[in-house]
Amino acid sequence: MREPPDASQAPRFTGPRTFGRLPYTTDLVDVDAAIYGMPWDGSTSFRSGARFGPEAVRSASSLLRPYNPVAQVQVFGAVSTIDYGDAPTVPGYVEETLTRIEAFVDPLVERGVVGVGVGGDHSVALAELRALAKRHGPLGVVQLDSHTDLWDLYFDKPLSHGTVFRRAVEEGIIDPGRVLQAGMRGPLYGASDVDVPRELGVEMVPWIELAELSPAEFGELARGRVGAGPAFLSFDVDFVDPAFCPGTGTPEVGGPTSFQALGYLRALTGIEFVGYDVVEVAPPYDSAQITALLAANVVFEMLSLVAQAAR
Amino acid sequence: MREPPDASQAPRFTGPRTFGRLPYTTDLVDVDAAIYGMPWDGSTSFRSGARFGPEAVRSASSLLRPYNPVAQVQVFGAVSTIDYGDAPTVPGYVEETLTRIEAFVDPLVERGVVGVGVGGDHSVALAELRALAKRHGPLGVVQLDSHTDLWDLYFDKPLSHGTVFRRAVEEGIIDPGRVLQAGMRGPLYGASDVDVPRELGVEMVPWIELAELSPAEFGELARGRVGAGPAFLSFDVDFVDPAFCPGTGTPEVGGPTSFQALGYLRALTGIEFVGYDVVEVAPPYDSAQITALLAANVVFEMLSLVAQAAR
Amino acid sequence: MREPPDASQAPRFTGPRTFGRLPYTTDLVDVDAAIYGMPWDGSTSFRSGARFGPEAVRSASSLLRPYNPVAQVQVFGAVSTIDYGDAPTVPGYVEETLTRIEAFVDPLVERGVVGVGVGGDHSVALAELRALAKRHGPLGVVQLDSHTDLWDLYFDKPLSHGTVFRRAVEEGIIDPGRVLQAGMRGPLYGASDVDVPRELGVEMVPWIELAELSPAEFGELARGRVGAGPAFLSFDVDFVDPAFCPGTGTPEVGGPTSFQALGYLRALTGIEFVGYDVVEVAPPYDSAQITALLAANVVFEMLSLVAQAAR
Amino acid sequence: MREPPDASQAPRFTGPRTFGRLPYTTDLVDVDAAIYGMPWDGSTSFRSGARFGPEAVRSASSLLRPYNPVAQVQVFGAVSTIDYGDAPTVPGYVEETLTRIEAFVDPLVERGVVGVGVGGDHSVALAELRALAKRHGPLGVVQLDSHTDLWDLYFDKPLSHGTVFRRAVEEGIIDPGRVLQAGMRGPLYGASDVDVPRELGVEMVPWIELAELSPAEFGELARGRVGAGPAFLSFDVDFVDPAFCPGTGTPEVGGPTSFQALGYLRALTGIEFVGYDVVEVAPPYDSAQITALLAANVVFEMLSLVAQAAR
Amino acid sequence: MREPPDASQAPRFTGPRTFGRLPYTTDLVDVDAAIYGMPWDGSTSFRSGARFGPEAVRSASSLLRPYNPVAQVQVFGAVSTIDYGDAPTVPGYVEETLTRIEAFVDPLVERGVVGVGVGGDHSVALAELRALAKRHGPLGVVQLDSHTDLWDLYFDKPLSHGTVFRRAVEEGIIDPGRVLQAGMRGPLYGASDVDVPRELGVEMVPWIELAELSPAEFGELARGRVGAGPAFLSFDVDFVDPAFCPGTGTPEVGGPTSFQALGYLRALTGIEFVGYDVVEVAPPYDSAQITALLAANVVFEMLSLVAQAAR
Amino acid sequence: MREPPDASQAPRFTGPRTFGRLPYTTDLVDVDAAIYGMPWDGSTSFRSGARFGPEAVRSASSLLRPYNPVAQVQVFGAVSTIDYGDAPTVPGYVEETLTRIEAFVDPLVERGVVGVGVGGDHSVALAELRALAKRHGPLGVVQLDSHTDLWDLYFDKPLSHGTVFRRAVEEGIIDPGRVLQAGMRGPLYGASDVDVPRELGVEMVPWIELAELSPAEFGELARGRVGAGPAFLSFDVDFVDPAFCPGTGTPEVGGPTSFQALGYLRALTGIEFVGYDVVEVAPPYDSAQITALLAANVVFEMLSLVAQAAR
Repeated sequence: MREPPDASQAPRFTGPRTFGRLPYTTDLVDVDAAIYGMPWDGSTSFRSGARFGPEAVRSASSLLRPYNPVAQVQVFGAVSTIDYGDAPTVPGYVEETLTRIEAFVDPLVERGVVGVGVGGDHSVALAELRALAKRHGPLGVVQLDSHTDLWDLYFDKPLSHGTVFRRAVEEGIIDPGRVLQAGMRGPLYGASDVDVPRELGVEMVPWIELAELSPAEFGELARGRVGAGPAFLSFDVDFVDPAFCPGTGTPEVGGPTSFQALGYLRALTGIEFVGYDVVEVAPPYDSAQITALLAANVVFEMLSLVAQAAR
Repeated sequence: MREPPDASQAPRFTGPRTFGRLPYTTDLVDVDAAIYGMPWDGSTSFRSGARFGPEAVRSASSLLRPYNPVAQVQVFGAVSTIDYGDAPTVPGYVEETLTRIEAFVDPLVERGVVGVGVGGDHSVALAELRALAKRHGPLGVVQLDSHTDLWDLYFDKPLSHGTVFRRAVEEGIIDPGRVLQAGMRGPLYGASDVDVPRELGVEMVPWIELAELSPAEFGELARGRVGAGPAFLSFDVDFVDPAFCPGTGTPEVGGPTSFQALGYLRALTGIEFVGYDVVEVAPPYDSAQITALLAANVVFEMLSLVAQAAR
Repeated sequence: MREPPDASQAPRFTGPRTFGRLPYTTDLVDVDAAIYGMPWDGSTSFRSGARFGPEAVRSASSLLRPYNPVAQVQVFGAVSTIDYGDAPTVPGYVEETLTRIEAFVDPLVERGVVGVGVGGDHSVALAELRALAKRHGPLGVVQLDSHTDLWDLYFDKPLSHGTVFRRAVEEGIIDPGRVLQAGMRGPLYGASDVDVPRELGVEMVPWIELAELSPAEFGELARGRVGAGPAFLSFDVDFVDPAFCPGTGTPEVGGPTSFQALGYLRALTGIEFVGYDVVEVAPPYDSAQITALLAANVVFEMLSLVAQAAR
Repeated sequence: MREPPDASQAPRFTGPRTFGRLPYTTDLVDVDAAIYGMPWDGSTSFRSGARFGPEAVRSASSLLRPYNPVAQVQVFGAVSTIDYGDAPTVPGYVEETLTRIEAFVDPLVERGVVGVGVGGDHSVALAELRALAKRHGPLGVVQLDSHTDLWDLYFDKPLSHGTVFRRAVEEGIIDPGRVLQAGMRGPLYGASDVDVPRELGVEMVPWIELAELSPAEFGELARGRVGAGPAFLSFDVDFVDPAFCPGTGTPEVGGPTSFQALGYLRALTGIEFVGYDVVEVAPPYDSAQITALLAANVVFEMLSLVAQAAR
Repeated sequence: MREPPDASQAPRFTGPRTFGRLPYTTDLVDVDAAIYGMPWDGSTSFRSGARFGPEAVRSASSLLRPYNPVAQVQVFGAVSTIDYGDAPTVPGYVEETLTRIEAFVDPLVERGVVGVGVGGDHSVALAELRALAKRHGPLGVVQLDSHTDLWDLYFDKPLSHGTVFRRAVEEGIIDPGRVLQAGMRGPLYGASDVDVPRELGVEMVPWIELAELSPAEFGELARGRVGAGPAFLSFDVDFVDPAFCPGTGTPEVGGPTSFQALGYLRALTGIEFVGYDVVEVAPPYDSAQITALLAANVVFEMLSLVAQAAR
Repeated sequence: MREPPDASQAPRFTGPRTFGRLPYTTDLVDVDAAIYGMPWDGSTSFRSGARFGPEAVRSASSLLRPYNPVAQVQVFGAVSTIDYGDAPTVPGYVEETLTRIEAFVDPLVERGVVGVGVGGDHSVALAELRALAKRHGPLGVVQLDSHTDLWDLYFDKPLSHGTVFRRAVEEGIIDPGRVLQAGMRGPLYGASDVDVPRELGVEMVPWIELAELSPAEFGELARGRVGAGPAFLSFDVDFVDPAFCPGTGTPEVGGPTSFQALGYLRALTGIEFVGYDVVEVAPPYDSAQITALLAANVVFEMLSLVAQAAR
């Protein structure tokens, strides 16, 4: 069992920062879940800095403890978890970077270890989905985000944090009929943008509508949309209002509180998630680590879903 | 048609920062709306810094796109809009400063261009109202704010960000019977302060009561109060809780979220607003531009009201 | 009558910062209430910095005015209040520090002056409770906090900000049957942690349940639990979501807004509070003073309870 | 003897912040020197914020101890010193503000108490010089600054932090033949600006030349220029390079280190200074209090000059 | 004559931020010099953020005035100068980005307008040198920097801010025999790194040696090395110690002060510079704009060299 | 050979932060040197936060490379070095903390591994010296610091960051005749403080005198004072001016630049140092990691001394 050291022996602020104070190793024997970083911010369309997202989330995650009293589930000590380190990235070269991230994630997928990626701008999800689809086929997706990331080209180029899910649809690695996006808000380029998700076969719930749903209703909606079969859960921290997540690259005001965000997340039981990520944590814009701390708790809730699924 | 450049050709972080990446010009031909700054913080009673409000809002407004999916209205591309620059101000001399701001705003009023001012401490509203009243007569007002700004004298002097609407009533440039103030909270100097709005003929809804109203109910209330005729919409960012708007001079805790604030704002359709402002953005106290970004979105919602009125 | 100077004569940003601009004195003649600081952060289990909490709250409290329009009660000018200064503390020596804080608070208790302490990490509450229990016997407690602070030992040592209320129960200075803790959230060390409050005889309402209660319902719950007799009200700023209170040592995401927090606080009328504190304000992590400003307003609401009780 | 409390009894971070932890009083009996604040930033031509300069310098001055080992002189305990509080100021009204500052300083001058003012933007010096000249006649001046502050009008108005010493020359309250300005640097409006000091009869040493002088040489130069008779020492923190003093309104890069600045200051023995000030401390732009801490030490060096003169 | 507006009419903090408050235009008629931005940070090997360098330098450059009293030369008003805007860049695609920057700079080179580029990470210099070499042939270079930027490959890829001058040598667009690099410091990958410049035919002066040279001696060295013929001056802000330039991506401690840096720069008269840049300004890490302000002054010194050459 | 991974394979910002990207292990086989943290700030007399010093120095140390071109010595790859993790500490209990740190350091001393400790406030040095003296007997000391840390009691208690070297003298674990302290500055409690070092038999060179010495002269002085035999080198980052090291608890203005500090450090060859530390790094007050980066380079210079001694 891979788990954090006993926090009653030394304060949680001691020792090199690994995620949740977990062992840092690439040995996958007897491992159920692995946290890994994707330090890349080359594809963001506004503020950079997310290459330090994994470091910041590791730092804040020192505050986590092993048991989830809301989900009533033991996480650390029940789900054998490691810090798998960071994918190598290549500043300035997005295609090469995605190739290396995919290769980095491959062993986890092959061994059936549930990966939880920490970004990094959202473009990294393409690499994760490619790795997962090689084993699982086209995936269902639940995406909590303020943007659909379904734009086509940015500056005539295909890879961007704003185009990642369109690329994934085109590559056939996600199944649009099993995709649910929720939380979208903020101005768009034009009225036709509203129709893009539907045109691609994706279901999109804007924040103005999601705000009317209870967590339980959202959980139902997600289970109904994703159905049976392997799926991916992607949490972009800009889903949450910038008061709670200032440390991100393309914030959109008027969003959910962190309490609401955790509620929606906790409702996502009963879906066969084979991979997770938390992206767009940009520490240079964070305040008192609050974004990183929320991201660390999102990872913890994802691990709680793993633990609940294993019960 | 004055509008921003195509954001698919160059990233939104390129180029000198004008509001919304709009053309910076004082040429008013074929212009429907103009954003302008009022960089003045000499009249604030606590934290200064709002003289850099216009710069900060311009910077954050790079993130805006042209279409409003909640109001379902095209803004940029439909409402011909410019960045009209900043009013000249005179540090240390409030009276002279208000005179210069008024003269700066006059051409907009004369040409019937809808102005959206960005402050600057709230004292600048007096200059704007003077300019507008010369053409429109006494104005109705909707003011979203945590303070009434109806105090009489500060340190025996008449001009302050805390006295601006009392001065406007006295000068006959606003019609108290058509004024609605909402969002007030925080300790007062004494019990008699509570009665001041009523004594002046102004309607005031404290935040503790507004919090019980839906946006639609608030919209009804405002339309009923302001009635027909020209009106002014003034949004002081300290209306919003300081978690969402830390960058302001006299914050009051326990206020609305930015989601609530946008909701109230969007409900203000059907009123004949001839001028708007967003004030009290104090960047030295902002965190990750979140205050400036909210202010930029408030401007965008105001322009959306302009667009809706034109439909 | 001890009260602040007239704010219409000189701006609130003038003069050395005492709490609420009140007189700084240790003369207790004709004094109803006293604010004092406990600058100690030696017992925090994560981020330090709370030793500057009293300074920061004093600074932010300049913005307070004398009248509470929600409670409809005059505070300054009605409750004779002073700034009593700071307890001496001894960096590195928690036991000695608690001894000195207790001796510092003793004169207030002896004279029947209601004290409102400003921390400092939560361990300081033990000193306050010891001082109060000498006169009042075992106290009831209302604790708004994200943690129970009922752990037993940290690193084999008894005194910590995480163990303070267990120690108080053991010392017999609080009556567990009259203790209500509310707001708890975040991961725990294990499932057994959930049962600790009940085992000690304390009532604990986690945030996920409190969020379902209106302020009035919470007030009822508290009055029922605490009953008649002297009680203590302890407000740990980490009760509030870190978006509203980033400046604290062990933040927990997904908590109440400041509007909710003030609501719960205002509902606590009708309880015989003989002492109050606001703790865990850690200014190095604050943003634009928002944590300190909320803490200052919490003190103001506590003084409002004093004023209401005196009516 | 007015002096700070014994720092071996309670940490220096305890208690309301007065300058140097000195008694806060307006009682001038048996007082040799008085520190006072001038919280005004209405006349600054760029970044505001200096209204919080006195608060920040008080906070940082907690770190001061009583003895100066370089000057080998006892300060606190030898020079009876108080914190005299802050002058009232009137936001938005520079003329009224200067009148009130002058009236606030008058009692010190009348009683022969040496005042050390803490600003506030440099315009406040005019008020101090007016008060001093009423008793002492035209004063000599040593000004360490990166700007001459000898411009004529700003935006057609006479009072600004950039015009203060020209106004003082015109009012006859300083004697240009006994004025030495040093440290000037940065671009000018035109070649003719270089000649302004000489035209007004003032001696100006630009930083590029001062940098070649040892402290002792500078001391000689100053004594030679100022000669016998009462003089004023004005230290604008923008004299120092912004790496050492980021917290100021109009920084100029490429300036002295704080070590050099202290050296020049310590060399100014043997001049009959009857007043001192340290201005342009703008805390919103400070980093880790380093500007405020330097300013506090500048005050301490000024008090050391008082102590040395009294020996 | 293109020049800034008269700063005596409106404060320098008014108006959209163009460089030095100059006209923003791409019209090159009657233009001597043009400032332009290159908002790209995709190739940095450590901290990103330099994509906002142009915005930050524009903001800080408001403080510049037209005359240089050290060089005794009129700049604005003598050298007709514009803000040429920002090159388009393509996040994630370094090769495409360099192509677009080169095309953006081409018109300046073709018209003989002296360009001063503001970065952006140092990789952008390759685009500038390509544009310049098309007209001027292989260029001489003076590079003030803490790194040689002569490494070969990073992660098997050729384009990086650490490889830019090696690429330029290989492409034949700079003449290694006319290149002088100065200021290098910090640990290296191995002893062989020390020999790289010499192996490539470039002269490199480490900071430990440069620190022994006066500005005049350095000027002699540079003139001797570069000789006659067109040259490029590249100033990486990490040349300066991070106390003076914290806002950069790969800081190296123990470097020059800003006073020293300006001295070396001012000594570079008599060289035929046909292009300039200031790079690696990363605003998210800046403190109180001090890095941006130094960079703005470096641009001003470069324009002063242009003015001196034109005399 | 324990060394960092090849930085040409993955960017230095990838992976959990260990010191210098070294292996994190407690296995001491084939290890020459070990970096370890002492996260304790309970004994600081002013600003806390140094408990996060080890984390911050690890983070900044990612920028280090293996070769020292000034000392012309290979460090990583020549000196087998590990990250040994952090000593357990006990918040609030200084005596217990020192006991645990000593026990943590013991194995290094026993195995003859050279330890480089990263603090933490300076009180931790007592634990290190106790561990070293058990094997080596009374040690010589070179201390670069702005304070002597020779005070007797703080608040009647013996252990403080200000008393640590007096305690070490009293315990006989350092030999005052072989102690050299340098860099002292700032006000003192009284004239008698100046004599304390001499009375204890320690040599102290104040900064005002050290500033006159070249690095070579300082090296001579140190070698002469310490002589033969084992010694300890302690570097308190407040030795350096706060412009270069803002992130510390008790800064003293007017100190050395980082260039000067590195010069003095590099001169300390030829002394038999058996242990090193760098202390008082307080990240909450740091700016853009500049303090942590300097501290990381100080560690690197210490390892360079180890490498040079091994040659």
